[in-house]
Amino acid sequence: MPMNELELTDEVLRRLDETPDPRLREVMQALVRHLHAFAREVRLTDEEWMTGIRYLTATGHKCDEVRQEFILLSDTLGLSSLVDLINHASDNPVATEPTIMGPFYVPDSPWREMGASIVEFDDGGEPTVVTGVVRDTEGAPIADAVLDVWHNAANGFYAVQQPEEQPATNLRGRFRTGDDGHYSFHTVRPVPYPIPNDGPVGRLLRDTGRHEWRAAHLHMKVTADGFTPLNTHIFDRESDYLESDTVFGVKGSLIADFTPGPDGVLVCETDIVLARSGV
Amino acid sequence: MPMNELELTDEVLRRLDETPDPRLREVMQALVRHLHAFAREVRLTDEEWMTGIRYLTATGHKCDEVRQEFILLSDTLGLSSLVDLINHASDNPVATEPTIMGPFYVPDSPWREMGASIVEFDDGGEPTVVTGVVRDTEGAPIADAVLDVWHNAANGFYAVQQPEEQPATNLRGRFRTGDDGHYSFHTVRPVPYPIPNDGPVGRLLRDTGRHEWRAAHLHMKVTADGFTPLNTHIFDRESDYLESDTVFGVKGSLIADFTPGPDGVLVCETDIVLARSGV
Repeated sequence: MPMNELELTDEVLRRLDETPDPRLREVMQALVRHLHAFAREVRLTDEEWMTGIRYLTATGHKCDEVRQEFILLSDTLGLSSLVDLINHASDNPVATEPTIMGPFYVPDSPWREMGASIVEFDDGGEPTVVTGVVRDTEGAPIADAVLDVWHNAANGFYAVQQPEEQPATNLRGRFRTGDDGHYSFHTVRPVPYPIPNDGPVGRLLRDTGRHEWRAAHLHMKVTADGFTPLNTHIFDRESDYLESDTVFGVKGSLIADFTPGPDGVLVCETDIVLARSGV
Repeated sequence: MPMNELELTDEVLRRLDETPDPRLREVMQALVRHLHAFAREVRLTDEEWMTGIRYLTATGHKCDEVRQEFILLSDTLGLSSLVDLINHASDNPVATEPTIMGPFYVPDSPWREMGASIVEFDDGGEPTVVTGVVRDTEGAPIADAVLDVWHNAANGFYAVQQPEEQPATNLRGRFRTGDDGHYSFHTVRPVPYPIPNDGPVGRLLRDTGRHEWRAAHLHMKVTADGFTPLNTHIFDRESDYLESDTVFGVKGSLIADFTPGPDGVLVCETDIVLARSGV
């Protein structure tokens, strides 16, 4: 029976020795080591432990089919961006950098004609065309690439957050490139927005003196046979919060210009460069 | 903007620099350092991260008014016992050692006469008298000490787990000592029991090849003016699982004998020694 703090940690690690799956054993033993090291380092009190239990419980209770408070927590603690860096830091400086997924992705967005609009609900956003070429790292266009895009409306909200106000597929769409690799779609300019702040994550941001804002961006998942799937954002260079995005999602290479075109429509021209898979 | 894993961790720590409460700042920055160190060390994959998000969400959804799955998780990861050691490891080798609270404590148990029974529902458990003296570390009896006791029935369940089957106050009670510090109550012998295993914690125990059993014990919270409150168990020396209690709650000094008395009733005689507060 363990008699002191370090013996206790050793005993917990020993109990995990028989984990059949070696990777689960590795992850769980590392988790226990780091969790115990945290508690020992800060000398976690009974009351703080109970506060943590209640915080995690409230975070779980806030989660439902359209709200994922644990992803928000992971995002605001920088864990999501760290996992992104661990898994997707490319040795290839030419490929488009990935960033975090965020909690608002909805699968099965409608297929749309190349060049079509994803706006299904006019709330006064600035008309914008997003366009470019999906290409490989040598510059060759990629045919049959699928772009899955989603972003928020001019009121700051994603359609999934406003089932009563916005059509479910507003500002979402899938596009397939032709032989020239070209893509384009009409939309409105994305705007900065606070992450959902009426739950435990919003409370923690306030308690730690942090703001709740994300820099303006649109999301893109881009896939093509033979290439590493890409999950990324395009950020608006004129947005606030580029330097303090509350979920640590901004990378300098993902910032793009939204430039006024001749007809008053903004143009955001951004090529998407995919790395070949297994390279 | 952070470019690599360590820069990202530094950036998250910087964002927490403005936390108004210095203790919250210390705890949150340590949490981020250890959480990020864990993810870096195991090279946490996207899928494993998502598995973790789903696991925490399911754990939160399992919590309700009578089920606290996060406490169970903390217990089975040894965190609860570690926090107990951090806060209640006594320099005084004479005082009764504390152990974890567990998830089944219910406040406001009925006051009972000293010597009375806490059995309100006969399910065939072995009749037992638990008795002893509440005293200080010099051996003097403590008057007006309050013992708040609770334990499971012969079927393995606490009353709070079986609102349909057991009276709510079955095997629970509060007792106040007189001038002689003596305490005693009638009950049934506690039995080993599996912790609730129909949720995420049970799944994790199975996935890591661990059993779900706690050694047989009864719980006691003991308080008295001028003394440090004590939260402890009395374990049955004949119980299985003393060496492998799944929540790491057993301490050798808390194991007691349940000895047959002349009338066939078991007797568990255990003095409770409280340390003076502030000593």
